[in-house]
Amino acid sequence: MGEKKKKQPKLKARLPRGFVDRSPADIRATDEMVASIRDVFELYGFDPVETPMFEYTDALGKFLPDSDRPNEGVFSLTDDDDQWMSLRYDLTAPLARHVAENFNDIQLPYRTYRAGWVFRNEKPGPGRFRQFMQFDADTVGAPGVQADAEMCMMMADTMEALGIVRGDYVIRVNNRKVLDGVMEAIGIGGAEHAETRLTVLRAIDKLDKFGTDGVRLLLGEGRKDESGDFTKGAGLDDASVERVIGFVSAGGANGAQTIDNLRDVVAVDSASGSGGIGELEQIANLVAAAGYDDGRVKIDPSVVRGLEYYTGPVYEAELLFDVTNEKGQTVQFGSVGGGGRYDGLVSRFMGQPVPATGFSIGVSRLMTALKNLGKLGRDEIAAPVVVCVMDRDAESMSRYQRFVSELRSAGVRAEMFQGNPKNFGKQLQYADRRGSPVAIIQGSQERDEGTVQIKDLIEGKRLSGEIEDNAAWRASRPAQYSVKETDFVTEVKKLLAAQAEDRKAG
Amino acid sequence: MGEKKKKQPKLKARLPRGFVDRSPADIRATDEMVASIRDVFELYGFDPVETPMFEYTDALGKFLPDSDRPNEGVFSLTDDDDQWMSLRYDLTAPLARHVAENFNDIQLPYRTYRAGWVFRNEKPGPGRFRQFMQFDADTVGAPGVQADAEMCMMMADTMEALGIVRGDYVIRVNNRKVLDGVMEAIGIGGAEHAETRLTVLRAIDKLDKFGTDGVRLLLGEGRKDESGDFTKGAGLDDASVERVIGFVSAGGANGAQTIDNLRDVVAVDSASGSGGIGELEQIANLVAAAGYDDGRVKIDPSVVRGLEYYTGPVYEAELLFDVTNEKGQTVQFGSVGGGGRYDGLVSRFMGQPVPATGFSIGVSRLMTALKNLGKLGRDEIAAPVVVCVMDRDAESMSRYQRFVSELRSAGVRAEMFQGNPKNFGKQLQYADRRGSPVAIIQGSQERDEGTVQIKDLIEGKRLSGEIEDNAAWRASRPAQYSVKETDFVTEVKKLLAAQAEDRKAG
Repeated sequence: MGEKKKKQPKLKARLPRGFVDRSPADIRATDEMVASIRDVFELYGFDPVETPMFEYTDALGKFLPDSDRPNEGVFSLTDDDDQWMSLRYDLTAPLARHVAENFNDIQLPYRTYRAGWVFRNEKPGPGRFRQFMQFDADTVGAPGVQADAEMCMMMADTMEALGIVRGDYVIRVNNRKVLDGVMEAIGIGGAEHAETRLTVLRAIDKLDKFGTDGVRLLLGEGRKDESGDFTKGAGLDDASVERVIGFVSAGGANGAQTIDNLRDVVAVDSASGSGGIGELEQIANLVAAAGYDDGRVKIDPSVVRGLEYYTGPVYEAELLFDVTNEKGQTVQFGSVGGGGRYDGLVSRFMGQPVPATGFSIGVSRLMTALKNLGKLGRDEIAAPVVVCVMDRDAESMSRYQRFVSELRSAGVRAEMFQGNPKNFGKQLQYADRRGSPVAIIQGSQERDEGTVQIKDLIEGKRLSGEIEDNAAWRASRPAQYSVKETDFVTEVKKLLAAQAEDRKAG
Repeated sequence: MGEKKKKQPKLKARLPRGFVDRSPADIRATDEMVASIRDVFELYGFDPVETPMFEYTDALGKFLPDSDRPNEGVFSLTDDDDQWMSLRYDLTAPLARHVAENFNDIQLPYRTYRAGWVFRNEKPGPGRFRQFMQFDADTVGAPGVQADAEMCMMMADTMEALGIVRGDYVIRVNNRKVLDGVMEAIGIGGAEHAETRLTVLRAIDKLDKFGTDGVRLLLGEGRKDESGDFTKGAGLDDASVERVIGFVSAGGANGAQTIDNLRDVVAVDSASGSGGIGELEQIANLVAAAGYDDGRVKIDPSVVRGLEYYTGPVYEAELLFDVTNEKGQTVQFGSVGGGGRYDGLVSRFMGQPVPATGFSIGVSRLMTALKNLGKLGRDEIAAPVVVCVMDRDAESMSRYQRFVSELRSAGVRAEMFQGNPKNFGKQLQYADRRGSPVAIIQGSQERDEGTVQIKDLIEGKRLSGEIEDNAAWRASRPAQYSVKETDFVTEVKKLLAAQAEDRKAG
């Protein structure tokens, strides 16, 4: 009925900024990666639990870095009962809601994982999308740091399961309580300084990006970037700035030395500071006992994580090999995920404290890393065999359809050419561009003889590279041969096996 | 820092209506089902291609049944450049946008599949959610009905791959062109009757729900439902109503008879009507040649599909076994998916016609069906072994952590108890409720002896069912035994193997 409709102006086919389509190669690589991560999490005794994309806006809270204003950073709309709903910006806040909502039915400690899309209503940039995938694991109802230690080990095992060798990754661990101790010592403890503490936190989180000098500016008066935009600082005095910088620079040659350095930086009279240092020591002991050395899980005071809701240990998985960034500079690949303890997040809904710890892996970013290392997509899926349509009468069409069915029954990916079959050259072009290994051809002559032509498109492509012109290529009819119709499935399978051998050898 | 914050009123933990969390069993069953469907689609030569959740609202168009008003049925919001964006309500409209946007890079015919979440801003009800999963396959750039025939066969193969036996499903096929012919014959062809034709379409689509009499009302003046709500009808006169009813009731004992009946119903002078009947005949021939009989793929004029954008063959996968509905009535399970030809959808963006055909499977609904048939979740994943925490000194904690690491290295799902370890009974209760097969116990006595206690929780549960009271159960210490610490991993694996044997036998 389309042609009877009123003519409408032609629509523009485009996606909103920051959203992308995914190719077969991307989807298959993601699936492969997600499956490897899941195997590790399952082995650790975690089970899958998922939440929907939407939550009530108040249930999500406002914990995004760089977005303190209401609705900044999230996609929100009102439901038909006028309540605000938002698309989740991470997988942690929805998990907290899930646990609180089902608290009576949940057996604690509650050990779960989930992979899913999250949304940020932010300015997109290179490698920065408004929809991206995270893969999280969380233990809720575990008060002790052994749960945090386990998270660090699980992150390390995940890196290795993905083929990232020791030395190419490290899990860095720190403790927000130690930073709290430093902040108490410089006089910004207490509820009235909450805003300043948040600014300090986010300043430190920019260490990777701006270096120590940039962070100094952000801790003090503020920083002007290359474009002239000014970011207001935390307004600390010089001595306080140096105290904070001393904290983030406290990393020593080994864990014991780092812990000694931290004791020097934090005022001895800070309960949260010394408590936090004690927890870091415990984590170091636990991971060492399980065989994870300093090169895999490392105490590092420069890690703070940008999210406001962490209350204790924080940890980050970092990749150490070099890559070239968009400006052509050689840099370490950097963070692919992290997390920490968030004892206050579930409690927001409850009349009781509910301790919790967990981490999030940035799936797209990790996939970029694995592609760099050549660790993905090694098991390529062969493109389908194409059965060409030579005659278009009903009987022939049915016969081609039967060929396809027979190949599929034998487990061979196959399709009948579904485009306009008038031009045979276009059919071969289609098979070729699709990367098909084999084309099946049966015209009226072959049908009368009870034969089928098998065209080896891989060999054909190789030969055509050696032959100088199109005419010579046509004349040679490379790598095409005739088989009995009754044998053709067996012959196709033989050819596919031979091609697979060649790929391995080549 | 949580305790320093201003006290906020306690938040309510709840989800917006029509959204649900997913349990481990649901997620694992969905994954299993999606993997089976994917295998079939891959065998047919389809590749995965995915689009994001958001599209510009105008790119999606307004094709939802029951929602003719702007933004009715979809979740929409404005981007920061004031353009309207919507969450996709199906996977077909975004695919059309994707093809149009990348037309020069795409090799036609373009054969792709995708599983993904879609959103409907509608009143939720039992089994009716505002976020649900669809699994689609589409061939774009295929003008001939052989592509539609292939879709029908692929749906049939999908049902069988999921364990639904022949006789329990049927793929019904019809053609919108035949209905167009009927509508021309009763004088509602032409652009000025587009609205009426849509109402007729949606009336017929309610056949399952309201029966022939209900549809008669919707084709005529209108229908009042049980609650007193009145739905305005298409306003056809009695003769026209009977002509349409004659069309949907034209199904005969076999395909040939149905096609004869359709010839009688459609006026001979309708080009689209007789063209459509010819296409149905071709589809019937093609599927028969490939070995799909009438019980698997069947011409059925009662199928029209509710979506406006179909232009030719339409098809629906229906499950035929009986279930009890929410009102306690015995009914056929019904549709689990369907689709059709949508030659106009890509063209909306293009200066040229782009034929396409495809279908969508309702994943949740199909999963409900498979659960009814007992076809899902047969390969249960064993819960993890729990290593209990008996002593809490640093050395002991490290030892328990090592036990867990050793089990995991041997491929055994395992976890150290991460809750508060003070109460040993609570640890066993946790392991028990979690469905753990085994608990590992080592107190100071066992440590000094170099032994470990293995507690068989499955056997323990069985025995405890036979023992009358709690005291007797405690006294019997059922199914717990001591092994050398050096042998404990081997012993656990032995026990797990024995439990697996029991499950098979039992």
